[in-house]
Amino acid sequence: MTTTVGAPESAHHADLDLGPAQSLSCRECGHRTPLAAEFACTECFGPLEVAYDFGSVRREDIEAGPKSIWRYRRLLPVPSDVDVYPNTEPGFTRLIRADRLAAALGVRRLWVKDDTGNPTHSFKDRVVAVALAAARQLGFTVLACPSTGNLANAVAAAAARAGWQSVVLIPSSLERAKVLTTAVYDGALIAVDGTYDDVNRLATELAAEHEDWAFVNVNVRPYYAEGSKTLGYEVAEQLGWRLPEQIVVPVASGSQLTKVDKAFRELGDLGLVEPTPYRVFGAQATGCSPVSAAYKANQDVVTPVRPNTIARSLAIGAPADGPYVLDSVRRTGGAVEDVTDEEVVEGIRLLARTEGVFAETAGGVTVATAKKLIEAGKIDPDAETVLLITGDGLKTLDAVQDEIGPKATVPPSTAAVREALGH
Amino acid sequence: MTTTVGAPESAHHADLDLGPAQSLSCRECGHRTPLAAEFACTECFGPLEVAYDFGSVRREDIEAGPKSIWRYRRLLPVPSDVDVYPNTEPGFTRLIRADRLAAALGVRRLWVKDDTGNPTHSFKDRVVAVALAAARQLGFTVLACPSTGNLANAVAAAAARAGWQSVVLIPSSLERAKVLTTAVYDGALIAVDGTYDDVNRLATELAAEHEDWAFVNVNVRPYYAEGSKTLGYEVAEQLGWRLPEQIVVPVASGSQLTKVDKAFRELGDLGLVEPTPYRVFGAQATGCSPVSAAYKANQDVVTPVRPNTIARSLAIGAPADGPYVLDSVRRTGGAVEDVTDEEVVEGIRLLARTEGVFAETAGGVTVATAKKLIEAGKIDPDAETVLLITGDGLKTLDAVQDEIGPKATVPPSTAAVREALGH
Ligand SMILES: Cc1ncc(COP(=O)(O)O)c(C=O)c1O
Ligand SMILES: Cc1ncc(COP(=O)(O)O)c(C=O)c1O
Ligand SMILES: [Zn+2]
Ligand SMILES: [Zn+2]
Repeated sequence: MTTTVGAPESAHHADLDLGPAQSLSCRECGHRTPLAAEFACTECFGPLEVAYDFGSVRREDIEAGPKSIWRYRRLLPVPSDVDVYPNTEPGFTRLIRADRLAAALGVRRLWVKDDTGNPTHSFKDRVVAVALAAARQLGFTVLACPSTGNLANAVAAAAARAGWQSVVLIPSSLERAKVLTTAVYDGALIAVDGTYDDVNRLATELAAEHEDWAFVNVNVRPYYAEGSKTLGYEVAEQLGWRLPEQIVVPVASGSQLTKVDKAFRELGDLGLVEPTPYRVFGAQATGCSPVSAAYKANQDVVTPVRPNTIARSLAIGAPADGPYVLDSVRRTGGAVEDVTDEEVVEGIRLLARTEGVFAETAGGVTVATAKKLIEAGKIDPDAETVLLITGDGLKTLDAVQDEIGPKATVPPSTAAVREALGH
Repeated sequence: MTTTVGAPESAHHADLDLGPAQSLSCRECGHRTPLAAEFACTECFGPLEVAYDFGSVRREDIEAGPKSIWRYRRLLPVPSDVDVYPNTEPGFTRLIRADRLAAALGVRRLWVKDDTGNPTHSFKDRVVAVALAAARQLGFTVLACPSTGNLANAVAAAAARAGWQSVVLIPSSLERAKVLTTAVYDGALIAVDGTYDDVNRLATELAAEHEDWAFVNVNVRPYYAEGSKTLGYEVAEQLGWRLPEQIVVPVASGSQLTKVDKAFRELGDLGLVEPTPYRVFGAQATGCSPVSAAYKANQDVVTPVRPNTIARSLAIGAPADGPYVLDSVRRTGGAVEDVTDEEVVEGIRLLARTEGVFAETAGGVTVATAKKLIEAGKIDPDAETVLLITGDGLKTLDAVQDEIGPKATVPPSTAAVREALGH
């Protein structure tokens, strides 16, 4: 059996330029293989990860770069001229000091990383941009994915901008907003009757059948996943080149959390920040909380679940990187926690009310989990904390629509307005 | 009669710091009055505009500033420490080279300014941030507006983040997404039975009754409007400190278009760019095209209309700055054009398909108008053009929902996917 699926011939050409990336390395056994469209170790079937030789990277080099994730291109598996190809130019989103939310939560210093400012309004634009850049080098011609929604938007948009074909597979139950804002880019959008985990399995089968399709989160997953490192890099740069003491990250497959952790370690290793201690916390919705359950049960294996939560973008019942999330969290002294759907909606509303940021359900999960961890004394209220808000409220309006609306509908008279306001 | 409405006592305190702003000046008769919460000339009732003494401003000062509109604070009516107050930190959105759209439209060099990356995903975050900063200096305590939608979102979010109360008035017919993404910030949102123009009149009456309410686009309009200059500044800076030859701007009240024009002139006057010629084009939906009608009829006055278009954010039938739009367009050698609702939807889809940018109806108006002006030979296909995409497709899903969707819904089998794709 070979684990090389969907690897076109040209993937093996000599002039493959993936910047500082040197090889793929197995996260389980450490076995190394050349850079290619592979994702599982030929020795032990463990997941492959990009291994680098960064050389020396200076803050000035990064600061002089574009105001997008490409300022970190020396730390990503992409060619040095990556930004000459049409791409969505994601990243370098706002990191805002959140004093009003801090007061509401009873902590001293809190920051919100608002990734809703990305081109398709979630952090998925980051991972897709890296996947596309690598896929181009590897000789693919079609960009594809199975998705819980945000990835669908990002893949369809990135392919449109690059002039690539796209094939996007979504569960047929997906939110209307996420369906329409994928379909509008005019790629091949296919709704599949089944859960995300069914759709994911289908994608793996299709990747084996179509050698020119780059399924960003399947056969080019090692490259794709590296895109999430940019969230960690940006937080550190925007804090003035230092690491936060605590960070809360939503967990679906678990990739993002492990890559934020990796980014912080790399920055320390490269001398770009002081390697101060930090703690990583994972956030899940109770209706799909396999990693939280494993964490609480003190287990190393993550038992798959059938998701049932309004946080559909996090509804991955069999999270590929679950065990590595447990590693990161335990090594750094963090925790994984989960919150109910009611708490998710409350989290969305709390963040909106205090900071003017309207997050999707995944953001509600992050805020509500932070609240719970603070109340439980697991997040230190005196240490600085960053919350990753990775998706946009406009995509999950259904989650809040029964709770909010105009205070009143009135005729156009000042008396009617005064009355409505109780003046 | 006094035109000072809603000006609290403290508006007149001596330590009013509005940065380079020196006075208000009448656009009709040139009469000057001190900086205050006024918007109409005491001599002739003409609209007031901010007059400045910029001193010398260098590119380096701007480039060293924050990655938000505050990098241009030396050119805005805001205090020099404006960014220490909690605000949404809007601006510095992507300017992307749009080669695929250029090819589709038959022009040589085209750029898209994608203002959907703002905190509430429209350019309104810019004007509201400036209005809030000025309103704070002027002693107001409540942020308010009448709105066609995007402004409602921006005011409610900015007030939440600043810890201010907000009062937001919208036509009761507004799109669901714009209602919910205002309501979520938990200010006083009031739906009014009537058109935007009815709501606008009501706001003017309320401003006269409530001296601590800053209606951003009514009693602090002179300050608010200056925020749109930042679109012009950014385009020029992002082009490498030069002016584009042609720019297409959507027109509702007309404020934005006139301020982009003003920004380009200021940059030339200050020596920040070479004062090369540029042409400004206005874009309207035919169902609300009073400025386009006046332009085509070669008139100086704009006759109000009753709007009927899917481009509801542009549905201002009595545009306050209409005559000044005509001035800008005629002086620079541009034009105003309008497009049907069908063309608007086609414009949205064309931009999405070619560049991966999903614009709201206002963006569809801009793209479709550019297309029409190119076909008519009014936009020079060999000269560089910038399109301002000022709002987000997620807020106007209704406009496209009947046209787009998944290609197919299939069971989870590779054969079913292949069949759906016609392979
Ligand atoms: C908005 C949002 N946040 C977070 C995640 C979690 O990402 P990961 O799968 O890397 O754990 C997702 C995944 O789809 C998402 O859509
Ligand atoms: C998305 C969008 N673009 C453009 C405009 C036009 O703005 P102006 O009133 O300055 O002409 C508006 C006004 O609401 C808008 O919402
Ligand atoms: Zn291995
Ligand atoms: Zn006057």
